[in-house]
Amino acid sequence: MIDLRSDTVTKPDERMRRAMYEAEVGDDVYGEDPTVNRLEERAAELLGKEAALFVTSGTQGNQIAGLVHCRPGQEVILESQAHIFLYEGGAMSALAGLQLKPIDGLRGAMDPIHVEAAIRGADIHEPETGLICLENTHNKAGGAVLPVEHMKAIYEVAQKHRIPVHLDGARLFNAQAATGIPVSEFAKHTDTVQFCLSKGLGAPVGSIIAGSADFIRHARKWRKRLGGGLRQVGVLAAPALIALEENPVRLQEDHRLAKQLAEGIQQLDTFHLVNAVETNILLVELTNSAHTTEALLAHLKEHGILAGGFGPGIIRFVTNNGITEKDIQLILDALHQFTE
Amino acid sequence: MIDLRSDTVTKPDERMRRAMYEAEVGDDVYGEDPTVNRLEERAAELLGKEAALFVTSGTQGNQIAGLVHCRPGQEVILESQAHIFLYEGGAMSALAGLQLKPIDGLRGAMDPIHVEAAIRGADIHEPETGLICLENTHNKAGGAVLPVEHMKAIYEVAQKHRIPVHLDGARLFNAQAATGIPVSEFAKHTDTVQFCLSKGLGAPVGSIIAGSADFIRHARKWRKRLGGGLRQVGVLAAPALIALEENPVRLQEDHRLAKQLAEGIQQLDTFHLVNAVETNILLVELTNSAHTTEALLAHLKEHGILAGGFGPGIIRFVTNNGITEKDIQLILDALHQFTE
Amino acid sequence: MIDLRSDTVTKPDERMRRAMYEAEVGDDVYGEDPTVNRLEERAAELLGKEAALFVTSGTQGNQIAGLVHCRPGQEVILESQAHIFLYEGGAMSALAGLQLKPIDGLRGAMDPIHVEAAIRGADIHEPETGLICLENTHNKAGGAVLPVEHMKAIYEVAQKHRIPVHLDGARLFNAQAATGIPVSEFAKHTDTVQFCLSKGLGAPVGSIIAGSADFIRHARKWRKRLGGGLRQVGVLAAPALIALEENPVRLQEDHRLAKQLAEGIQQLDTFHLVNAVETNILLVELTNSAHTTEALLAHLKEHGILAGGFGPGIIRFVTNNGITEKDIQLILDALHQFTE
Amino acid sequence: MIDLRSDTVTKPDERMRRAMYEAEVGDDVYGEDPTVNRLEERAAELLGKEAALFVTSGTQGNQIAGLVHCRPGQEVILESQAHIFLYEGGAMSALAGLQLKPIDGLRGAMDPIHVEAAIRGADIHEPETGLICLENTHNKAGGAVLPVEHMKAIYEVAQKHRIPVHLDGARLFNAQAATGIPVSEFAKHTDTVQFCLSKGLGAPVGSIIAGSADFIRHARKWRKRLGGGLRQVGVLAAPALIALEENPVRLQEDHRLAKQLAEGIQQLDTFHLVNAVETNILLVELTNSAHTTEALLAHLKEHGILAGGFGPGIIRFVTNNGITEKDIQLILDALHQFTE
Repeated sequence: MIDLRSDTVTKPDERMRRAMYEAEVGDDVYGEDPTVNRLEERAAELLGKEAALFVTSGTQGNQIAGLVHCRPGQEVILESQAHIFLYEGGAMSALAGLQLKPIDGLRGAMDPIHVEAAIRGADIHEPETGLICLENTHNKAGGAVLPVEHMKAIYEVAQKHRIPVHLDGARLFNAQAATGIPVSEFAKHTDTVQFCLSKGLGAPVGSIIAGSADFIRHARKWRKRLGGGLRQVGVLAAPALIALEENPVRLQEDHRLAKQLAEGIQQLDTFHLVNAVETNILLVELTNSAHTTEALLAHLKEHGILAGGFGPGIIRFVTNNGITEKDIQLILDALHQFTE
Repeated sequence: MIDLRSDTVTKPDERMRRAMYEAEVGDDVYGEDPTVNRLEERAAELLGKEAALFVTSGTQGNQIAGLVHCRPGQEVILESQAHIFLYEGGAMSALAGLQLKPIDGLRGAMDPIHVEAAIRGADIHEPETGLICLENTHNKAGGAVLPVEHMKAIYEVAQKHRIPVHLDGARLFNAQAATGIPVSEFAKHTDTVQFCLSKGLGAPVGSIIAGSADFIRHARKWRKRLGGGLRQVGVLAAPALIALEENPVRLQEDHRLAKQLAEGIQQLDTFHLVNAVETNILLVELTNSAHTTEALLAHLKEHGILAGGFGPGIIRFVTNNGITEKDIQLILDALHQFTE
Repeated sequence: MIDLRSDTVTKPDERMRRAMYEAEVGDDVYGEDPTVNRLEERAAELLGKEAALFVTSGTQGNQIAGLVHCRPGQEVILESQAHIFLYEGGAMSALAGLQLKPIDGLRGAMDPIHVEAAIRGADIHEPETGLICLENTHNKAGGAVLPVEHMKAIYEVAQKHRIPVHLDGARLFNAQAATGIPVSEFAKHTDTVQFCLSKGLGAPVGSIIAGSADFIRHARKWRKRLGGGLRQVGVLAAPALIALEENPVRLQEDHRLAKQLAEGIQQLDTFHLVNAVETNILLVELTNSAHTTEALLAHLKEHGILAGGFGPGIIRFVTNNGITEKDIQLILDALHQFTE
Repeated sequence: MIDLRSDTVTKPDERMRRAMYEAEVGDDVYGEDPTVNRLEERAAELLGKEAALFVTSGTQGNQIAGLVHCRPGQEVILESQAHIFLYEGGAMSALAGLQLKPIDGLRGAMDPIHVEAAIRGADIHEPETGLICLENTHNKAGGAVLPVEHMKAIYEVAQKHRIPVHLDGARLFNAQAATGIPVSEFAKHTDTVQFCLSKGLGAPVGSIIAGSADFIRHARKWRKRLGGGLRQVGVLAAPALIALEENPVRLQEDHRLAKQLAEGIQQLDTFHLVNAVETNILLVELTNSAHTTEALLAHLKEHGILAGGFGPGIIRFVTNNGITEKDIQLILDALHQFTE
């Protein structure tokens, strides 16, 4: 199958498998897994943060950010289509007791003026704003890159009001690949940042959360409470290290294929490309309301292609390291046949 | 001072004070306060619900609804300007672990189609929708009445998906006074309902939460956890009983004065009446951006009039049982002088 | 009925009722109720704390202490028979996310060595100790007074480890009445203190929580979230002020009657007095296992006397302002008849 | 180093490493990892439960049990030295809002009479008992096995009161190895059970939680909220499958060595063996109060031996798959030298 449902479906390659096989390990609850320690140091260095922590998923990293930065009864400002708001099971309210305040953005970017207007505080009726969350690249906005200048503007508002900023950077390396700007330039305008090792970077499991040494010390304890304190987890850190060293550049290939697919789709009348494709995500809308996304997904599946529904009338394609140039042509052919 | 900041500023009258003085009381934690019991029975009867419970505030009633109806990790659909979302300190997330999903409404009313589209469920990434909250009359929409037909439509959506509906009816008796439709007709389209005894109804303290007998049994325990299990609280129930029996009709006078004030304001160029005044709330905007609400509030205060800011450029007047026809003229005079 | 189930059953007297009738009130959510303000100032002064806050119950005051002092995931050290652990519906875990660590005490007093040994901290597996709670007088220990020296010793341990101490002083004025030592001497060895106006002091409703001005500022917001932000609550503050000024001395009468009852019971073979009676609580055990507490309570009820079960084989009598010397004799007579 | 700090320090062997290298994987968030599915089916089968779920740690499995079985404001009965109470960061209160009610046990086993007496319910002051947790083998009681008959007795009490039972069986396979009774016989007397793949069984990472199909469906969603929804986690399931198939028998060797070490220690005057060694844990106390555990641990370390402090005056040895018969002699020699 040609699987474009997500870049999470990527499978570890031979080198990663070998790294697991050979991984030097220890008990990471005691801080004694040398491979994990190496991964955390390297991740912190790449992001320009004091310290980093391996977590088992992007959701875990984001939740820890809420738990460490905030106290119950505070409010978190985020974009109204943010992953944290839509796809984390309401966890930030369930676990950390935080109210989420969604703000509509443009291509995933909230207007700093709206953010500042939404900050709340001392009034007895109001939750205090405890955190601002950004997402870069922004999944629901079709992999849109939040420009560094935008992040800077939000961070200035946040600092003026002494509110921390957390970046859900699950696909932050896609922003780097798309712009040539290093992840540290983006991370500079946040207090903490999470990125996934298991999406386009291709590691089988895991994410990184990074910030100040003090933040990470607290994060480590919350990770334990969530059940993310693991033992010989060097077996996951070893392929993740390879992912981190080698695959950031490879993302450019995902982007190239995504654009190629986008260009092809723009030739087809039956489909409307919803987003300006900057990275590895395409959102495609059916232009003829007689057709359903269910029918389209079934048709594609018959042709050996997997994609995912992404709201009413829209399907999502995510290019990833399992996709080749030849696959793109097969997808376009299958889409073309659907139109007939 | 002429105080129109809110209808919460109303003071108990002579009859209420006498009722307190004479109240027959007992220990309500043991269920032995006869005056409280009478109030709860009467409130349930008026609302057409099996049972009711005295709580110390509207916020406490609303929070109990979330705590009893839902489990942590669920989502609550409500209008984006709802009191629960804006003015309860993020408590529904802090105490009950619920994520709030705000939907923009028209005059406080969410489109039932939007509500149905927002319902979430089994998908592993999603919080299940656990509750739908309505607010009637809707404070932030300027005291707008949600029509019974609207509530019916929302309730049909809710029942189809087996989701409970809670009504924040802090000012539900204003809806009755404005439409002539009894509160029970509104309450019929909800599982639980909260209304305030301390706003236009004029009791010094307290609200009612009502629903099924089983709901109230659980509500009673949550009220205890929140610290709302009181002792000889018949001293509050006694004036509340008077409020409930005598003051619903009196609200029509508040509405009459509000409309009189609205008509006067519409004559003044410097002010724009934001809302169509249906009940006792007026939202007034400054039309000249050179003027500030701070200056206007200060000017009114000099003339012995208190009003409140209500978002950028807007002030709110709430008529209540302390306001007379003569006061309305004084307010209009003061507003007129501000324009000069 | 002669009601000794609790001192919470006391009813407001004529003077308190008159005070309610005449109370000067305002909207306390705006901080404008002069009677509430006077009560809070007076309470702070009596306790020797910077500031105080009226709350609707002892439970609400205790819960606010947990919510303000701590963060979720911390641990609270308290005596294993503390009211907070036994009788507050698990609220400190439910609302504030705190784990309770009970330690067996002697007459309600935990050994400071045990307290220090129970303090936990940096280890990744452990919740950090966030609060130590004391209870004085100690209900379940039969109204035992925690000596000032004991409280001092606990406070020294707490300060050494920079852990706040909260005193559940629901019946703190009984400690004063029993020892002649002013409440401020007890309160000196805690960061925050709660006491009830509605128990032996006889006010119909309410408690006070006191501490630093900063603590009270946060407490005020948490009180709002719990639904304890009230309006013209001067009607409750007025009788509470009388309770506070006049009734502390009256508690000595409750204690005198309790001792008289205790002496009488010690003459009766069928009963064993569990506790050394220092204040207004007696715990009485049936010495003949053929008798049940249910039978005893029913027998007393037939004689117009109400008491309460208090664990297997034990009933509790609490003297209060509704009990007279004559009642004591009636109770002893009824107990005597039970033995026959 | 000879590492007896815990059986969590075990490192994956060649066969496990090869299994990781060759693991067939898929995206487990979509339920498509065949190796994970195989592991979960096999674990359910061994435990005699309908369904099972891979979680990243024992703590995560235990926390999910609390989150799924209970509602906030309920109470959990457990033994006072239970891992959940002592070593999970207060997470069951922090995440699930549950109050823990510790009961002293004998060799880790609570008296069923005490358990029944501790059950609480409808009274307005009480948290309802929502869960009973057992731990088998019991870590803090020195790896003591809870007999099947004991578990049966507790389960009968629980079922009578319709309260679910969860077994923290982190080392349940040690109970099987020590008694010859299959894990399913223990698991039969619980609703849900968690066991660790990463302790004596030797897998690098992971645990299993098992119960009814309905329980596991809810558990899957809570696992996602905690950040335990992983991607190509077959790389962890593959070594875990080997651990599950091959290592249960191997635990007998750990037990044999533990007993050998125990016998040697009993010859040494300076040490007191605290526990009757049934499985792989030894608790050793210094008999001469002039010696400290710190000094003893340092002395052992100099001899290339690692053990852990386990409360005042006590150290813990845990035999595991990295320990040989020769190591036992070296440890005894080192202990002997300490006495001199």
